[in-house]
Amino acid sequence: MKKQKVSSAVIRRLPRYFRHLTDLHLTGVERISSSALGKSMGLTASQIRQDLSCFGEFGQQGYGYNVDNLRGEIADILGMNKGHTAIILGAGNLGRALMENFHFDRSGVALAAAFDVSPDVVGQERGGVPVYHVDKLEEYLAAHPASIGVLTVPRGVANPIAARLVRAGVKGIWNFTNTELNLKEPGVIIENVHFADSLLALSYMISEDA
Amino acid sequence: MKKQKVSSAVIRRLPRYFRHLTDLHLTGVERISSSALGKSMGLTASQIRQDLSCFGEFGQQGYGYNVDNLRGEIADILGMNKGHTAIILGAGNLGRALMENFHFDRSGVALAAAFDVSPDVVGQERGGVPVYHVDKLEEYLAAHPASIGVLTVPRGVANPIAARLVRAGVKGIWNFTNTELNLKEPGVIIENVHFADSLLALSYMISEDA
Repeated sequence: MKKQKVSSAVIRRLPRYFRHLTDLHLTGVERISSSALGKSMGLTASQIRQDLSCFGEFGQQGYGYNVDNLRGEIADILGMNKGHTAIILGAGNLGRALMENFHFDRSGVALAAAFDVSPDVVGQERGGVPVYHVDKLEEYLAAHPASIGVLTVPRGVANPIAARLVRAGVKGIWNFTNTELNLKEPGVIIENVHFADSLLALSYMISEDA
Repeated sequence: MKKQKVSSAVIRRLPRYFRHLTDLHLTGVERISSSALGKSMGLTASQIRQDLSCFGEFGQQGYGYNVDNLRGEIADILGMNKGHTAIILGAGNLGRALMENFHFDRSGVALAAAFDVSPDVVGQERGGVPVYHVDKLEEYLAAHPASIGVLTVPRGVANPIAARLVRAGVKGIWNFTNTELNLKEPGVIIENVHFADSLLALSYMISEDA
């Protein structure tokens, strides 16, 4: 399917659609109207129709959306069936939390390996994922290409490690380091996870309420 | 300042404004036009003026915004000067990552304590924060009220622990458990951190690019 240019706000809503449709699917809902889907997500029916129209024709007048079909279409749009593979850089507390507790596979991503420098963790497995020394990064990626690098290293080494990932062919960096990455290579996608943005939104909402 | 009802999209942008203004401040920028601020954030000048108009009059025609003043105003709006205190529930990998590496204070929040059940960690300090047994939760909160509970427990106990937090007076829950919380008490604010939404947005963007 040829996609038109899609706004960042729509891209941000797609994973939420997927999450809500998954919940509906798991509770046995087979079809849903755009207004009911909107209500459960805090959006208007017309916003939902407009969002989805960026990607093609879904749903039927008077019937609504088939939950399972729409969920599958959105999974496709999100690239969940592209066979993306990820590696983790930095097997400290946060890296280990992701290795042991985060279900990469539920996002269609295979977590293949992690890299660190600490003798405490190199050579071990965490959550079934092997941890190698970061000196082996290029050698590993030459044999096992990965599309996503998960950056959970200390911020002081974030930029050099990110540059090595990109030179070794990684296309997207999931950046947990709270540092702006300055990559010279064009075309690399950086997705920053800003914990503070979320905490500040919570702070706003509880302060408002008072 | 009396605030009008503010949309969730604006609330989500406020922490980003704060982050960008902090960066500008640290690099010595004293004033900035709405169009220059917008450019650095991927927003239009009119969107920025409209967002900020929800909270009062900032900036001056032909001068722009005083970076430090606007940063201070947004900090106030975000409740960063309200003296919010947080406790962490669950000192596993993710809880420890937050205790040791996340700067709560930079969001105006004091992290006071953590709670767990494991004898490996109860009675210790991590990142300068004491870890108590969760049996002491109500006793602790009676003596040291906290406004924010950070939920990093296993998902199976997320709901009962959240209910205990709310009964003990916590007003906001920062939920990392990937579980929908079903709280009966009205007025509690839940801020969910969905790692998968972020990973799926990255998956979309690198798939698009291919």
